[in-house]
Amino acid sequence: MRKTLKELAALINGKVVGDENIIISGISGIKEAKPGDITFLANPRYMPLIETTEASAIITSTEIKSSHKTLVHTDNPSFAFAKLVSLIAPEELRPKGIHPSVVMGKDVKLGENVAIGAYTVIEDKVSIGDNTIIYPACFIGHHSSIGGDTLIYSHVSIRERITIGKRVIIHSGTVIGSDGFGFATVKDLHHKIPQIGTVEVGDDVEIGANVTIDRARFDKTIIGKGTKVDNLVQIAHNVVIGENSIIVAQVGISGSTTLGEGVILAGQVGIVGHVNIGDGAVVAAQSGVSKSVPAHTQVWGYPAKPFALAKRVNACVNRLPQLYKTIEQLKKKIEELEKRINSR
Amino acid sequence: MRKTLKELAALINGKVVGDENIIISGISGIKEAKPGDITFLANPRYMPLIETTEASAIITSTEIKSSHKTLVHTDNPSFAFAKLVSLIAPEELRPKGIHPSVVMGKDVKLGENVAIGAYTVIEDKVSIGDNTIIYPACFIGHHSSIGGDTLIYSHVSIRERITIGKRVIIHSGTVIGSDGFGFATVKDLHHKIPQIGTVEVGDDVEIGANVTIDRARFDKTIIGKGTKVDNLVQIAHNVVIGENSIIVAQVGISGSTTLGEGVILAGQVGIVGHVNIGDGAVVAAQSGVSKSVPAHTQVWGYPAKPFALAKRVNACVNRLPQLYKTIEQLKKKIEELEKRINSR
Amino acid sequence: MRKTLKELAALINGKVVGDENIIISGISGIKEAKPGDITFLANPRYMPLIETTEASAIITSTEIKSSHKTLVHTDNPSFAFAKLVSLIAPEELRPKGIHPSVVMGKDVKLGENVAIGAYTVIEDKVSIGDNTIIYPACFIGHHSSIGGDTLIYSHVSIRERITIGKRVIIHSGTVIGSDGFGFATVKDLHHKIPQIGTVEVGDDVEIGANVTIDRARFDKTIIGKGTKVDNLVQIAHNVVIGENSIIVAQVGISGSTTLGEGVILAGQVGIVGHVNIGDGAVVAAQSGVSKSVPAHTQVWGYPAKPFALAKRVNACVNRLPQLYKTIEQLKKKIEELEKRINSR
Repeated sequence: MRKTLKELAALINGKVVGDENIIISGISGIKEAKPGDITFLANPRYMPLIETTEASAIITSTEIKSSHKTLVHTDNPSFAFAKLVSLIAPEELRPKGIHPSVVMGKDVKLGENVAIGAYTVIEDKVSIGDNTIIYPACFIGHHSSIGGDTLIYSHVSIRERITIGKRVIIHSGTVIGSDGFGFATVKDLHHKIPQIGTVEVGDDVEIGANVTIDRARFDKTIIGKGTKVDNLVQIAHNVVIGENSIIVAQVGISGSTTLGEGVILAGQVGIVGHVNIGDGAVVAAQSGVSKSVPAHTQVWGYPAKPFALAKRVNACVNRLPQLYKTIEQLKKKIEELEKRINSR
Repeated sequence: MRKTLKELAALINGKVVGDENIIISGISGIKEAKPGDITFLANPRYMPLIETTEASAIITSTEIKSSHKTLVHTDNPSFAFAKLVSLIAPEELRPKGIHPSVVMGKDVKLGENVAIGAYTVIEDKVSIGDNTIIYPACFIGHHSSIGGDTLIYSHVSIRERITIGKRVIIHSGTVIGSDGFGFATVKDLHHKIPQIGTVEVGDDVEIGANVTIDRARFDKTIIGKGTKVDNLVQIAHNVVIGENSIIVAQVGISGSTTLGEGVILAGQVGIVGHVNIGDGAVVAAQSGVSKSVPAHTQVWGYPAKPFALAKRVNACVNRLPQLYKTIEQLKKKIEELEKRINSR
Repeated sequence: MRKTLKELAALINGKVVGDENIIISGISGIKEAKPGDITFLANPRYMPLIETTEASAIITSTEIKSSHKTLVHTDNPSFAFAKLVSLIAPEELRPKGIHPSVVMGKDVKLGENVAIGAYTVIEDKVSIGDNTIIYPACFIGHHSSIGGDTLIYSHVSIRERITIGKRVIIHSGTVIGSDGFGFATVKDLHHKIPQIGTVEVGDDVEIGANVTIDRARFDKTIIGKGTKVDNLVQIAHNVVIGENSIIVAQVGISGSTTLGEGVILAGQVGIVGHVNIGDGAVVAAQSGVSKSVPAHTQVWGYPAKPFALAKRVNACVNRLPQLYKTIEQLKKKIEELEKRINSR
């Protein structure tokens, strides 16, 4: 790449503060950037790097100033940067066409321009939309349906009768539609409750690597439109996740729990079954949620509490060693007073 | 399906309370049920739904009454329902026969009616029992033995010399027999301790998706008969799990720990190595178990404590902000008393 | 095997305490050992077993004595034992040669004596070093490079442009190079930030089963030389791990966090993004690390604190029910004193 900063700024609707005629030849993170690179700053933690980075230009929000660095002001630096990267990133080499080794079931409906890599197995009556790419060594169970413009990496297992939307991305090793964990216990023996429901993954969802999403006992486990799920997440049977939520790595959501829209679950959160997490709720990392969380509130802790309370409680806990000393002093003081009173 | 409630009740040994001649045409969860469906109620949380569900009949335990709904009383509604579902659920379409692409090692022993899906690799000297079904894209290492009537979904890796019992179910992406995590550290370098033991999975075990079960250093890692393991669980080398235990998703059990029979580990529990969890013990979700747990006790917390103590401690923790205020008041009170004494 | 204890002791530089002419015919764990076996004792928890084991000889450290058992004294029993096991363990049967079903891309460079199992897919421009063994059903993306003497088990996905060192071991189901979890949110919609960086895995690294290691946004996610990673670990984009660290099962490390050399993260630890864990730091199991950890310190807890503080705080927490009683007594005492003063 060799473009003027002016040209790049135009692509992202940015305003250059400094010399707009400098030549940009690369794109990079703020720490690794070299002269000629454009970078961006969104995380305030890295603010000091703005003066030390070797980047030739920095995309930032409008309130950031710098005495000697060339900036590109935008409303949302992360988004502007993402846009820039997708514009100039090299085209990825992906599988093309249907590899001759693909095992294709009966009555499979393929859209136009579908690509399927080597040794992928497609069972009967699957339908796959236009432009969808499936990497090698995947398994798609019978009667499943995959929308168009979807991207499925290697070693993904999609069991039977699952519905995947359009523009979905599923990373390697993920399993969608495994049986829910349901047993009826009679005299200490656990009898399997058949899991005859399905999973529905909405449009524009991204699912990380080695995730597990169980099928419903009946009905559907649902991942709402636009929701993003990180690696190694467990989503149990009959869970319903609303639109545009964020589920960070290693979260576990137990059966029949529902999440609203725009919910954020940070890493390693665990949520009990049969509760509701309201729209826009935020659960801090590693929290253990044992009851419903109202919309637009934030919780933290084990067990999870409203964020402000959790913070106050946590501060109190940290001061406990001091508190025990204080109480010893009070005890002595009281004994002393008692003695003085007795001695009169 | 079109059956009278009387016919269905007979299948599960239930007693109809209401009109036994109504026609049942479907089976469903209590929330999703429509007229014509039969459903069940086992979780007391859903008790209010008994009056609002659209289901035409509800399987419940004998103490449940309803003014206007038709009930089927049974001793164990979950079990009765599971039985009903398996009786009327549509036959699943599974792989049939040995797909011509299967790579079959030398001296493999196949029972009758074995099915193996496309691109599965079976190494030398494997034996597979009657009626066992292996989905596409699995790997079975040499000298491993798999019992009859077992079901193995796609992308399962079973390493060499592993023993899997009868009527076992293993979900997609699970790895059985990976090396235990064992190193001898000399001058900061970690030297691998060869893991030459194996894994033994008992009859009637079910193992979820993307689970990892490591082989023993010597001897065996053991999953006892009838135990059920949920998704993304980690079972380290030389762990021994007793019969009919329940291990919920994302649990981690460290090396050489043993579990008794009928143990329940809730989601995301972590257990340190070399301890014993007694028969019938229950560990609450996300607990961190750092020492042995006696049989038939319940523990909770990080670190895990007896349940009643953990609950009391947790209540105390939540009241800490109030406690700090109380102590400030006591302090003032004491100062005041002291002044009054001094002033006499 | 039939060797004298003298011969075996010579292999590991050990000193026999007892009869060096006894014949050793097997090798085993201390609990399972039978007469004729050699075993070892390193974990002090198993000290009592030294007198009850049926083993004919025990490798121990020099300070251990026994009245009637034959010992082999060494500086590091675990290491000596590991060495012995690798010397006498049966040669593993591994894939040999390139299976005819391997799909080989263009311009692939293979070293000497490379083995690749059935149905593995190697994309264009991959290079693989001498003596490396890749099990069946793996996927290696284009432009990736794998060093010599490396061992990759079945169902491993290595995405494009990844670098794997020499003598690396990667267990089944692991995914290396999946996209980092990065989104720019505009008006509640999450837009993908392209992840165009890569992953670099150093020499002598071992990575467990079903692990996920994301590629960097730019630049590299790095696993340092000699580091060992257990099963089901999540390593996010741009994480940098130093040499010879130990990452136990189910740990999650968030984006852009860096670890020094010789760090130990125990099981189920979670670390927030953008912090630094210093050389030789130890994080106890299930801890939630929310800020940087200085070198050579130990932390524990949720949130993680210095170990000694965490222990003190935890002891205080456990004594809270008693503390509340004490405070009730103090309250009464004060009231009583107040009454006595008032009554004068």
